[in-house]
Amino acid sequence: MQPIYLDYNATTPILPRVFEAMRPYLTQHFGNPSSGHAWGLAAARAVAKGRGQVAALLNCAPEEIVYTSCATESNTTVLRGLCEHKPGAHLVISAVEHPATMACAAFLESVGVSVSKVPVDAQGVVAPSAVAAACRPETALISIMLANNETGAIQHISEIAAIAKERGIPLHADAAQAVGKIPVDVAALGVDFLTVAGHKLFAPKGVGALFVRRGVPLTPMLRGGGQEQGLRAGTENVPYIVALGEACALAAEDLDAEMARQEELGRVFLAGLEKLGALFVLHSAKAPRLPNTMAVGFKGYRAVDILSGLVGMDVALSAGAACHGDTTTVSHVLTAMAVPDEYAFGTLRFSWGRPTSREQVEEVLDRLGQVLAGLK
Amino acid sequence: MQPIYLDYNATTPILPRVFEAMRPYLTQHFGNPSSGHAWGLAAARAVAKGRGQVAALLNCAPEEIVYTSCATESNTTVLRGLCEHKPGAHLVISAVEHPATMACAAFLESVGVSVSKVPVDAQGVVAPSAVAAACRPETALISIMLANNETGAIQHISEIAAIAKERGIPLHADAAQAVGKIPVDVAALGVDFLTVAGHKLFAPKGVGALFVRRGVPLTPMLRGGGQEQGLRAGTENVPYIVALGEACALAAEDLDAEMARQEELGRVFLAGLEKLGALFVLHSAKAPRLPNTMAVGFKGYRAVDILSGLVGMDVALSAGAACHGDTTTVSHVLTAMAVPDEYAFGTLRFSWGRPTSREQVEEVLDRLGQVLAGLK
Repeated sequence: MQPIYLDYNATTPILPRVFEAMRPYLTQHFGNPSSGHAWGLAAARAVAKGRGQVAALLNCAPEEIVYTSCATESNTTVLRGLCEHKPGAHLVISAVEHPATMACAAFLESVGVSVSKVPVDAQGVVAPSAVAAACRPETALISIMLANNETGAIQHISEIAAIAKERGIPLHADAAQAVGKIPVDVAALGVDFLTVAGHKLFAPKGVGALFVRRGVPLTPMLRGGGQEQGLRAGTENVPYIVALGEACALAAEDLDAEMARQEELGRVFLAGLEKLGALFVLHSAKAPRLPNTMAVGFKGYRAVDILSGLVGMDVALSAGAACHGDTTTVSHVLTAMAVPDEYAFGTLRFSWGRPTSREQVEEVLDRLGQVLAGLK
Repeated sequence: MQPIYLDYNATTPILPRVFEAMRPYLTQHFGNPSSGHAWGLAAARAVAKGRGQVAALLNCAPEEIVYTSCATESNTTVLRGLCEHKPGAHLVISAVEHPATMACAAFLESVGVSVSKVPVDAQGVVAPSAVAAACRPETALISIMLANNETGAIQHISEIAAIAKERGIPLHADAAQAVGKIPVDVAALGVDFLTVAGHKLFAPKGVGALFVRRGVPLTPMLRGGGQEQGLRAGTENVPYIVALGEACALAAEDLDAEMARQEELGRVFLAGLEKLGALFVLHSAKAPRLPNTMAVGFKGYRAVDILSGLVGMDVALSAGAACHGDTTTVSHVLTAMAVPDEYAFGTLRFSWGRPTSREQVEEVLDRLGQVLAGLK
């Protein structure tokens, strides 16, 4: 049975072109970009080129890009940098943020920061007016994700940016799941900070970036060698920086066409689901959504059972509900959306990517049909 | 002219064997170790294998190894984790720590932590009695490097550990420059935390590790996905974790023989220097030192002039003094050692590694002789 990977929101493979771009920096050019000799200069040039490629995709200046090791680090750098050690500081996030943001906010709360979690509607969407209502004179940061990792729901970041700007509050968007899948233009979005995760767009696991708008102050988390304009110390991960740059360049080349192709895969998938006979709901169906993500709640099933069946048939995907012994725990995202248990318990996330073909989607539908029939 | 790299303390190349070990995880196995399907399990197994290899080199249990993105992150995790948000906390470091530690300590000082910087003697060595004298009832952490990046001087960590243990104070050693060059046994050293930098031992830039002794509490810096036993969130950098494991395995295989070979290169280099006719001092000559590092102060020269000459002859190395316009700035390490200006201003760091041959050392001596003669 041919293995089929439909878990691109968990992580992506490194595309061959991305690997080939970084390969010389793994095997040949190994200098430290801080060194003043030829080895160092070659590395520094590669870092500069990568920075330009990331900046081009995001529509910002290269010097507004700070490399990090992952999206968790990017998010943490902004949240801690803006809110920590500021007596009385207040932080606004949404109820559906990634665990990295949720956990960092909980930590900040434990050290005296006030945190407001703005609710979402049944579609998983944050109302900009609710963000406005949560703001206080002492709000130090608003952090709302651009696209949700579980449902693919896209938030109204530019409307939220208008609210933030009016109040003089810096705005951060975690765009880990959005970059490379939909246009992400920091100027159009109006954000001050934006998180990028390499391994969600066909670059390796272990590299991320943070857009930091020129002139917006940020207290650095990692200090020392003065790299990244003093905003992130540590010897640069040159090969992965090259890879992230190439992945961004690749995404920029055909984003519209690839989006259209992925939307078509979604239509095929949804039409196929409807023929399987099971009752289901497509979460965030009425929200603007990523073209590659469908979180589907199968009524009356346990996600773990469907997942086991599909994993046994060499299909990779994720569940929106986890089993711990006899207890089923629904994700905080589905909980925030008030998805009824009968659908939440049976929720799976299907996410595809550039390498996914229509044939693979059809084959997964076939296997899914067998699994659902077997569970009847 | 054949390029010669003698800047292994700045960074090292990825050895071919290390690249081959990680390569399948760049091109083939790309799963997220947190995923429960076959792709994820293959990645999780690779991470577990790497952890065992790092632990074997350091003589600890695999679960005492936490992966990070670099030594700066490892150091910062310990310093902030132990001292921040603890009213009245006191931190003891030495005057010759890496900039990552110095800068983090300065930040902690700015948010209310008391910091004591223990001085070093003219050899760059910290007296354990001076560490003892600096300790207070409210000391939350002692952080002393194992080997200095500029001079290679090795500190008396096990004696300092006895002092820390007696007082119930956790001890961290930054071993970024030591691991892979000399035996680093966390049990023998008696440390509670120890920093490893991948790119100093022929693994890539962008991966580090932190030994955390079982039972010693650490407040995590990066939170979220629960990776690394909750001590470091963020999707694991699987390829580099595999690489770091292989580099540690490689180091463990022939550490004694390679140390002896590098010491011999040092004797050749020093004997050659003596024949060049210039007055010089070998910094930390009377201290225990790394076998691959010699910081040499040439009397009456400016480091930048020698460096420019050597760089022009395709030799890579670093200076211990930097020029900014008309001003020469001596490193904080040489300053702490009270090296007289006439030697400090002319200090260069020569550092070799596994790929360095005796012929290369002799060739560098030859080129150095020409440069010094030209500067007379």
